[in-house]
Amino acid sequence: MSGIRPSAIRELLRLGDDPDLISFGGGYPDPALFPMNELSEIFHELLTTANARTLQYTESRGLPELRARIADRLTRGGTTCGADDVLVIQGGQQGLDLTAKLVLNAGDTVVTENPTFLGALIAFAPYEPRYAPVRIDEDGMDMDHLEETLARHPGARLLYTVPDFQNPTGVTLSLDRRRRLIELANRHELLVLEDTPYRDLRYEGTHIPTLKSLDTEGRVVHVGSFSKILAPGVRLGWAVAAPDVLEKLGLLKLAADTQSSTLNMAATATYLGQYDIDSHIADACAVYRHKRDLALKTLDEVMPPEVRFTRPDGGLFTWLTFPDTFDTADFMRQTLLPHAKVAYVPGTTFFPTQQEPNHARLSFSGIADERLVDGLHRMGDLVRRELAH
Amino acid sequence: MSGIRPSAIRELLRLGDDPDLISFGGGYPDPALFPMNELSEIFHELLTTANARTLQYTESRGLPELRARIADRLTRGGTTCGADDVLVIQGGQQGLDLTAKLVLNAGDTVVTENPTFLGALIAFAPYEPRYAPVRIDEDGMDMDHLEETLARHPGARLLYTVPDFQNPTGVTLSLDRRRRLIELANRHELLVLEDTPYRDLRYEGTHIPTLKSLDTEGRVVHVGSFSKILAPGVRLGWAVAAPDVLEKLGLLKLAADTQSSTLNMAATATYLGQYDIDSHIADACAVYRHKRDLALKTLDEVMPPEVRFTRPDGGLFTWLTFPDTFDTADFMRQTLLPHAKVAYVPGTTFFPTQQEPNHARLSFSGIADERLVDGLHRMGDLVRRELAH
Repeated sequence: MSGIRPSAIRELLRLGDDPDLISFGGGYPDPALFPMNELSEIFHELLTTANARTLQYTESRGLPELRARIADRLTRGGTTCGADDVLVIQGGQQGLDLTAKLVLNAGDTVVTENPTFLGALIAFAPYEPRYAPVRIDEDGMDMDHLEETLARHPGARLLYTVPDFQNPTGVTLSLDRRRRLIELANRHELLVLEDTPYRDLRYEGTHIPTLKSLDTEGRVVHVGSFSKILAPGVRLGWAVAAPDVLEKLGLLKLAADTQSSTLNMAATATYLGQYDIDSHIADACAVYRHKRDLALKTLDEVMPPEVRFTRPDGGLFTWLTFPDTFDTADFMRQTLLPHAKVAYVPGTTFFPTQQEPNHARLSFSGIADERLVDGLHRMGDLVRRELAH
Repeated sequence: MSGIRPSAIRELLRLGDDPDLISFGGGYPDPALFPMNELSEIFHELLTTANARTLQYTESRGLPELRARIADRLTRGGTTCGADDVLVIQGGQQGLDLTAKLVLNAGDTVVTENPTFLGALIAFAPYEPRYAPVRIDEDGMDMDHLEETLARHPGARLLYTVPDFQNPTGVTLSLDRRRRLIELANRHELLVLEDTPYRDLRYEGTHIPTLKSLDTEGRVVHVGSFSKILAPGVRLGWAVAAPDVLEKLGLLKLAADTQSSTLNMAATATYLGQYDIDSHIADACAVYRHKRDLALKTLDEVMPPEVRFTRPDGGLFTWLTFPDTFDTADFMRQTLLPHAKVAYVPGTTFFPTQQEPNHARLSFSGIADERLVDGLHRMGDLVRRELAH
């Protein structure tokens, strides 16, 4: 238990309930985008056709019709797989927990992007790993640095990556680097945990093949989630892996919680069968693209030049880098929250080992335009004042 | 991973899909008892009142209104607690996983009933414990044997028990023994994991206080589930523990899957607020009491005297004990399944260490009366023939 971190995510989830706060903190999708009417009809249908099976136990690895729909959709997107290659999980987070449980012993080395997803650090912590963080730039994880890092950590077991619109930075791993990552994983016999919660939220450019689709030795566990493309409240995601790995993950799923909600799995499978989720996602992307553009344009206007930020092609986040001496946690606690009621996530929490104080993660989803602009203006004013000291 | 067992439960879940099979195997509740109409209305209401919050992320430890409803109900039943003492989990199974994750290191000793719940062995296996199984009789775990066992295993960390209508045997721990169990746990500084999925399904006699209500040193993690009293398909349960323990379990829940389904939590909270679940449970108990009576009466008629079975006051199971030389797994595979299409769970799988071959678990829930009687007659005929050899 020594490995459990104080929960910054949970604190943010709590803050999210204050209606006065303008929070760029959560990775929340915009609730206005949830297909309420469609889901309402589906749940109504499932619960009134005397179909009690939707409330009974089912297969631990997930309802067959949902696994088939997920496999179809992944295959259409270039990640070829069948229903039996899919394990239904409780959102992407459970994929991180189960994969860590499968491969990690205390003291094992996990390779991550630097910075990386806080939820992954929280998922891995109970297994007490060590971390080998790898530099990232606008094209994702730096492969030369990865190669050096693997040479220095020959016993590394697991590489964790968010290749698309990474959390927290928003950057995307280029195709060349994906190919090289697979080569390095093969050479060093790593398991690669590919976490793709934002993959479908691309606002420009074309989709880059998943690591799973480039996987030549069955080393990639591909994890995805319905949280950002349907709704977080159904708590559903998927894992796709080589048969021997998926079989073990399935047993760990059974051990962890027996199965996911039969009702939610049936509703999601029905949604995928009766509606066009790709069209729904295109609508969501239009909204988020607008939010991203508005956020970046406003940041361009309000931030002094010494504050840099990423310009992501998708996802929910931009990553701000302040001058080295700027402490974003102090600034938020002492200035931004009390004087402007604005919040972001201070960057320190995303670093597995050496915590850099001068970054912040901003989410532009789920905030009304006016509040988004207002919040960034308030923040920009205070940042300028702080930097002028 | 060495600790993962081949999944007997999962095999049974699969078998359950064959409509010709008369299965006494699953611990399934009767789907005819699910409150479909009520839940249909509730889901409709939740998804049509523009209340997108029910599909958004929420607090990791569970929706406050659900935690409050659970605490009220437990308090009415004598296990006094408040909303902040409750963690919402994915059915009881997740409570077993998280508690094991909290306290167990490889090689640690877990004390269990002998036999014990297979799902607990599956939940604990990834943490690679050793087991110290304790004899049970018609009043549950034998406290003299527990005392001896603890003396022989001074480093034991965790005691796992299903005190009410135990799975697989159906027996209930008496009040005197509960008091003594708490004394022994205090003396040996054990954490007690009290698993109560069947507690509300009492068909005669009066409720015995929970171990949690008798807990004097905050040593009991009390786990309960909506699977048997509402529906398994919502995948919801609860854990109640001392504040420091619950805080850690809450962090492990966050690490494992972020939270349970917001929608299902909202629906369950609404159900508990708008309907009388105790009246619903009373209706369910009437059905299950009838099934139990029918099963025991039929077993009395069809089984030869050398086959003994428990007469549980509640729950879903009776436990059959055949002569020592009888192998229930072989009998099922070679005779019962091929010649009668009848299944139970062979008893071996419930023993943590020394597997006794001559037991079987029979579930009497969720089978139509005629099929229940028919299945037991077919089984009785074949058992008599087998024992006559």
